[in-house]
Amino acid sequence: MNLQVDENGRLRHFLSIDGLNRDILTDILDTAESFAGVTEQSIKKVPLLRGKTIVNLFFEPSTRTRTTFELAAKRLSADVLNINVNASATTKGETLLDTLRNLEAMHTDMFVVRHNDSGAAHFIAAHSQPHISVINAGDGRHAHPTQAMLDMFTIRRHKPDFKELSVAIVGDILHSRVARSQILALNALGAGEIRVVAPRTLIPAEIDSLGVQVHHHLASGIRDADVIIMLRLQNERMQGALLPSAHEYFQLYGLTEERLQVAKTDAIIMHPGPINRGVEMDSQVADGARSVILQQVSYGIAVRMAVMTMAMSNAQQAGDQPS
Amino acid sequence: MNLQVDENGRLRHFLSIDGLNRDILTDILDTAESFAGVTEQSIKKVPLLRGKTIVNLFFEPSTRTRTTFELAAKRLSADVLNINVNASATTKGETLLDTLRNLEAMHTDMFVVRHNDSGAAHFIAAHSQPHISVINAGDGRHAHPTQAMLDMFTIRRHKPDFKELSVAIVGDILHSRVARSQILALNALGAGEIRVVAPRTLIPAEIDSLGVQVHHHLASGIRDADVIIMLRLQNERMQGALLPSAHEYFQLYGLTEERLQVAKTDAIIMHPGPINRGVEMDSQVADGARSVILQQVSYGIAVRMAVMTMAMSNAQQAGDQPS
Amino acid sequence: MNLQVDENGRLRHFLSIDGLNRDILTDILDTAESFAGVTEQSIKKVPLLRGKTIVNLFFEPSTRTRTTFELAAKRLSADVLNINVNASATTKGETLLDTLRNLEAMHTDMFVVRHNDSGAAHFIAAHSQPHISVINAGDGRHAHPTQAMLDMFTIRRHKPDFKELSVAIVGDILHSRVARSQILALNALGAGEIRVVAPRTLIPAEIDSLGVQVHHHLASGIRDADVIIMLRLQNERMQGALLPSAHEYFQLYGLTEERLQVAKTDAIIMHPGPINRGVEMDSQVADGARSVILQQVSYGIAVRMAVMTMAMSNAQQAGDQPS
Repeated sequence: MNLQVDENGRLRHFLSIDGLNRDILTDILDTAESFAGVTEQSIKKVPLLRGKTIVNLFFEPSTRTRTTFELAAKRLSADVLNINVNASATTKGETLLDTLRNLEAMHTDMFVVRHNDSGAAHFIAAHSQPHISVINAGDGRHAHPTQAMLDMFTIRRHKPDFKELSVAIVGDILHSRVARSQILALNALGAGEIRVVAPRTLIPAEIDSLGVQVHHHLASGIRDADVIIMLRLQNERMQGALLPSAHEYFQLYGLTEERLQVAKTDAIIMHPGPINRGVEMDSQVADGARSVILQQVSYGIAVRMAVMTMAMSNAQQAGDQPS
Repeated sequence: MNLQVDENGRLRHFLSIDGLNRDILTDILDTAESFAGVTEQSIKKVPLLRGKTIVNLFFEPSTRTRTTFELAAKRLSADVLNINVNASATTKGETLLDTLRNLEAMHTDMFVVRHNDSGAAHFIAAHSQPHISVINAGDGRHAHPTQAMLDMFTIRRHKPDFKELSVAIVGDILHSRVARSQILALNALGAGEIRVVAPRTLIPAEIDSLGVQVHHHLASGIRDADVIIMLRLQNERMQGALLPSAHEYFQLYGLTEERLQVAKTDAIIMHPGPINRGVEMDSQVADGARSVILQQVSYGIAVRMAVMTMAMSNAQQAGDQPS
Repeated sequence: MNLQVDENGRLRHFLSIDGLNRDILTDILDTAESFAGVTEQSIKKVPLLRGKTIVNLFFEPSTRTRTTFELAAKRLSADVLNINVNASATTKGETLLDTLRNLEAMHTDMFVVRHNDSGAAHFIAAHSQPHISVINAGDGRHAHPTQAMLDMFTIRRHKPDFKELSVAIVGDILHSRVARSQILALNALGAGEIRVVAPRTLIPAEIDSLGVQVHHHLASGIRDADVIIMLRLQNERMQGALLPSAHEYFQLYGLTEERLQVAKTDAIIMHPGPINRGVEMDSQVADGARSVILQQVSYGIAVRMAVMTMAMSNAQQAGDQPS
């Protein structure tokens, strides 16, 4: 459980928001502030991780997520290896642990892991050498902590005091690793009020333990909200019995300027991307003045640069000590 | 139409030869001269675009073209992201504009665009932020301007005075974005005479407006020519009714040493590659003393380095100004 | 035959162990020693090949081998182009020689070649320009010389005096380019005794010319051995008549702690990876104190860095001379 932090409480892996306290999360946000400046410079490169090797270890393809991690790594001057595991070692029958041992033997420094099994990043972190850092880039339905932290960064830039905020998360809470990570982060950072807004079929059974209010109607769910986070509706979910159609979803939960009138006038609208226009929201909202969706993308690079440098620095100090 | 140049007439995007005057084209060729030296040095790298991010945004796969742009970018010390769009965002239903907005939000600086729709690069340039440069790496049947400029560079190295030259372009003019771009560039640079040589079925209807002579026989088409550009015959075209077979094509339009005797004795032979040996020409010609086909490849890197630095430098100055 | 060395006997290509004498092999091992240090530093990068372009030219996919060469190249500060030839030029009908000519025209410096035809790397080296170096990353059943040299490096680190050693190579000798290269290297370095251990169906006909002892039983084959090299059993071989099943193979030739008792007590166990656990050996052996399998992986980077710098340096001096 405390795999993520060393004995001094410093970040060593970044696997989930669970188990990280407000100090560490705030430290990540503060570090990301300095990198947000770097990505806006004319020369967007700092030599912090020069000579380090970062492996994008993707068991599930995702160009979008891989791209943001690759950019973050390159702007830190690290060397990047992109490894699509389906296409390589496992087809030769090599076990996951053998793949890890081999990558470690090549003197790599960090694994950015994407996997469709919940807990995969934890497993890899638990079985890696001390000097290796593991970053979870999404594991099954479990966690997507860098996404949650870029969301927190975006919120803090607009609304610095979390305890004043009412945050509504709208959509398929049941299947969303993003929502789970956001709720944990908002709680850790002391958000005033967290609401989840979804039909009954898309609310997880354990919702009561998460410290959130449950709403089934959009109007009540976003009333007087400061922050509205729209989750992406996975198309593959809509083919089952859980939801009849994208059209009907939009009728009930799609965000429009008209429906937004019940929220605070300075509310910000967020979405992890890519947007299904006309499903989660219409284009007027997506491209409107209150949308901060593209800022989320920008800040995503800075947040990943922050997490990478913090974890690698602490892990490599640990690796240098006698074990 | 003037999307490509700023208010001072400087290159900002490189989308087509159409709309660029002789001064800009000559400026590109002169800048490429300095980079031709760089690629022949022992250390083939200059720091001009260090800290910049160039995205190879390929909606149509092309290892060959992607490779030359990637090499050009790396030799300018830029970071390169290769994105095959079919394989990523569009499968998640994201619109092209959303893909652009996301890449911009990651603080990228240049899109090198390959697309099978004519006009795609223009569309992207029209919808990008001011500091972004777009380079067209081939769009449908419309344009392939870096190919045309490397051809002009190759010609000028051998035959410096365009107005003295008779240039013959042989092959499928109808479907060739390369031919279209070459004709525009040769006209802008004041070539003495431009001839197109092809069967009637492979000549476009609007040929009269292009300022070229039309020939249907190879012998008359290349008689006394200084420069002979053989177009690549696309295999997929030969399956339709336009042309009976590769064998018959060679009988009528294939270049041999014997047929070349009617051209000037110092004529140069060009081809955009890859050659279909025994279709557009036999190997004796392809590998002969008058062939400059491999020089075209070499100069292609230098020309792309020139276009990239010119466009990025001017676009970023524009992006710095209040809009 | 002497394609690999220049007139002064220095390495220019690295195609096979055949034709290289003990001095050159020892020179490779000594050079690799200095790079072994680099890969263990905090900043694992040296500027030796800065501004050089290395092409991973893979006609046969292999993420594992490609990765080690890519890492070696990046740690030498070279630019790397990964080209999967099946997916690109050959689908357009371009010949292998045209592909080479085009890559040379782009001013590349080295081809790392993987091909399923024996002799492909030699062919490419024979047809490349003088300043180009070719490294064989595995060709058909013929050779895999960097694998053999990382094995020699690993052996020498543990057992410095080759003439004292008894080395057993166990497995499918018939189909193994790795075994062929190992036997040649061990002979060149003066190994005391080389044994091959395999069923009759997996011993090549020309075995008598290789200077090895042949054993058909594991117990006699590894008795008093200092070094035991287990070859990987290719799954596709097991579907034919040569071997009945993986289970039966393990019964006869699989390494266990118990069977290892006949070897020297300080024997080292090697395997080129990836291991089929429970086929070539059980996990107790693979992960045991005598296994040096992961060291092979680590040293593989250093050996490849050594071969790349030696070959490129000598080839480029050759390329500078008038031809």
